[in-house]
Amino acid sequence: MDTTHIQLAHGGGGQLTADLISQVILPAIGGPQHSHQLTDAATLEAPHGHLAFTTDSYVVQPLEFPGGDIGKLAVCGTINDLSVVGAHPLGMSLALVIQEGFEIELLRRLLTSAGAEAKAAGAHVVTGDTKVVDRSACDGLIINSSGVGLVHPAARLGFDRVNEGDAILLSGPLGEHGLAVMSKRKGLSFSADLVSDCASIGQLTAALLEEFGPAVHFMRDPTRGGLAATLAELSVGARRDLEIVESSIPANKTVRAAAEMLGLDVLAAANEGKLVAVLEAGAAAKAIAILSKFKIARRAAVIGAVGAASDDPLVELVTTAGGRRVVQMPYGEELPRIC
Amino acid sequence: MDTTHIQLAHGGGGQLTADLISQVILPAIGGPQHSHQLTDAATLEAPHGHLAFTTDSYVVQPLEFPGGDIGKLAVCGTINDLSVVGAHPLGMSLALVIQEGFEIELLRRLLTSAGAEAKAAGAHVVTGDTKVVDRSACDGLIINSSGVGLVHPAARLGFDRVNEGDAILLSGPLGEHGLAVMSKRKGLSFSADLVSDCASIGQLTAALLEEFGPAVHFMRDPTRGGLAATLAELSVGARRDLEIVESSIPANKTVRAAAEMLGLDVLAAANEGKLVAVLEAGAAAKAIAILSKFKIARRAAVIGAVGAASDDPLVELVTTAGGRRVVQMPYGEELPRIC
Repeated sequence: MDTTHIQLAHGGGGQLTADLISQVILPAIGGPQHSHQLTDAATLEAPHGHLAFTTDSYVVQPLEFPGGDIGKLAVCGTINDLSVVGAHPLGMSLALVIQEGFEIELLRRLLTSAGAEAKAAGAHVVTGDTKVVDRSACDGLIINSSGVGLVHPAARLGFDRVNEGDAILLSGPLGEHGLAVMSKRKGLSFSADLVSDCASIGQLTAALLEEFGPAVHFMRDPTRGGLAATLAELSVGARRDLEIVESSIPANKTVRAAAEMLGLDVLAAANEGKLVAVLEAGAAAKAIAILSKFKIARRAAVIGAVGAASDDPLVELVTTAGGRRVVQMPYGEELPRIC
Repeated sequence: MDTTHIQLAHGGGGQLTADLISQVILPAIGGPQHSHQLTDAATLEAPHGHLAFTTDSYVVQPLEFPGGDIGKLAVCGTINDLSVVGAHPLGMSLALVIQEGFEIELLRRLLTSAGAEAKAAGAHVVTGDTKVVDRSACDGLIINSSGVGLVHPAARLGFDRVNEGDAILLSGPLGEHGLAVMSKRKGLSFSADLVSDCASIGQLTAALLEEFGPAVHFMRDPTRGGLAATLAELSVGARRDLEIVESSIPANKTVRAAAEMLGLDVLAAANEGKLVAVLEAGAAAKAIAILSKFKIARRAAVIGAVGAASDDPLVELVTTAGGRRVVQMPYGEELPRIC
């Protein structure tokens, strides 16, 4: 493998991405030395309470897919990154890099979608930027969205807050976004039945923090790299084993079938409207009841528990057949340009 | 002209950009209805004081040029956007879209440059994102940088604060960035003598606010579209005529010669380390004395004055020959991919 040039896999949200960030990017910019010290949004000291600040660039292809488009995705992604650090958005940005020749009507449609999603989520696009590049320099449209939020005063979230016995919750079925985009891209005939879960999860996180405050220990949206990447990062960050139970994980049959056909692991497929939350075991049942009231989380479930401290922590899946297998951090790019 | 597709000129920072923003982007996302109501950084209501929040994507080619590179440019650009609304950075983001096959050593060099500039300016990169796309989807590297800042408590800046008789200050010669990048790109033989002015101007804006507080009425960094675009926006936003004097504008002879050879207007050429400030006339002399102490502003000068209120305001240039000409908003893309 060529180690002196960027590979597609460096952008896959898996181990190669983590290596690139910790070995190249962070040392170069003088940031923290380990990527697992990074969270989805930065928390900034502010006079009253804490601010959160996050950024993401979106390069999804195709630009429109069942259940969403790059505009909605950019807004949801940034709101969700703020949400999982316990913040609600004060303002967000949209920065566009547009290919020369891009259809204006399509741009309008994508931005309208972005605006509608922001409005529905109570967020406001307060700043932006527009660049146009020649045809050879970008295929279509790239959107960066950044966001600033105010952290809920009761939020006490972090790897160091995760304890043995804590419950691991998942808000719904896995892989809907990843499989919807892949099927659309490949023109598969069942693509109409596959719909991205692209959604803002701010209501879910706010409801949990409002009810349980510091009993919520960790939250994350399992996007690139899927649940596998989220749990692998959590186990390494918390230095604890994790156990999840396959039969407890909400399943979408169409997604499972498509994943099998394409040879993809649903655990590693991207989601854009799901929440993973870790909280005190005693709060789990009520948390599921609260989450289930929201349409996007009506199939929320406890999928596992946090185990003992370990210097070499593992994520284990108890399979429906009763066996056990280790859930690995995805190595590289399973589904390129999924977000 | 094809009005249904994006042209390169839509990204030039001139009239076509303003049209695209006000006619397509803002209506679609539900923002303010006129682009001149937008400032470079968003100010967010916060518990104590005001936050500023800004974003920019950088697509400059070549990635490295005399006096800077895309990394330094991204950091300076975001710091400068915060600075001209009176804010100092609390934190900034870097989001990378990298072409498959990009040389890692070059990436390291560019990010090191970004990190060094941030450190020198007292800013911190606190969050980021990395995407990799295939070779056909992006030529090299695109960087988005966003920033959050705290606004100086004495800052009272805005179009509505600009009064007749106010002095217009410029911190140094025009066009150094635009001509350095263009000459490097075209491989012109005099390119070694052309050096971008790429720099953070936070010290300049802070010094003015510290000394004069609300007597500073407006600040802007004249980037894409140059001084011409900045003054055109100011005159429209403030609904006032402006007059600038050609002989007062600091000149760089090499830049002027290169611009003449390339058929470019220095007034419309991009700058990446310059400040335009409007303040009470009585404060102008002292302001020049303060700015001149900084190396990047040692040629700071009063270049003109704010005129009377007008429903159809004009920016007029008094030429060295004693004539007068109207300074127009640049129409489109004079120097593509300059930032």
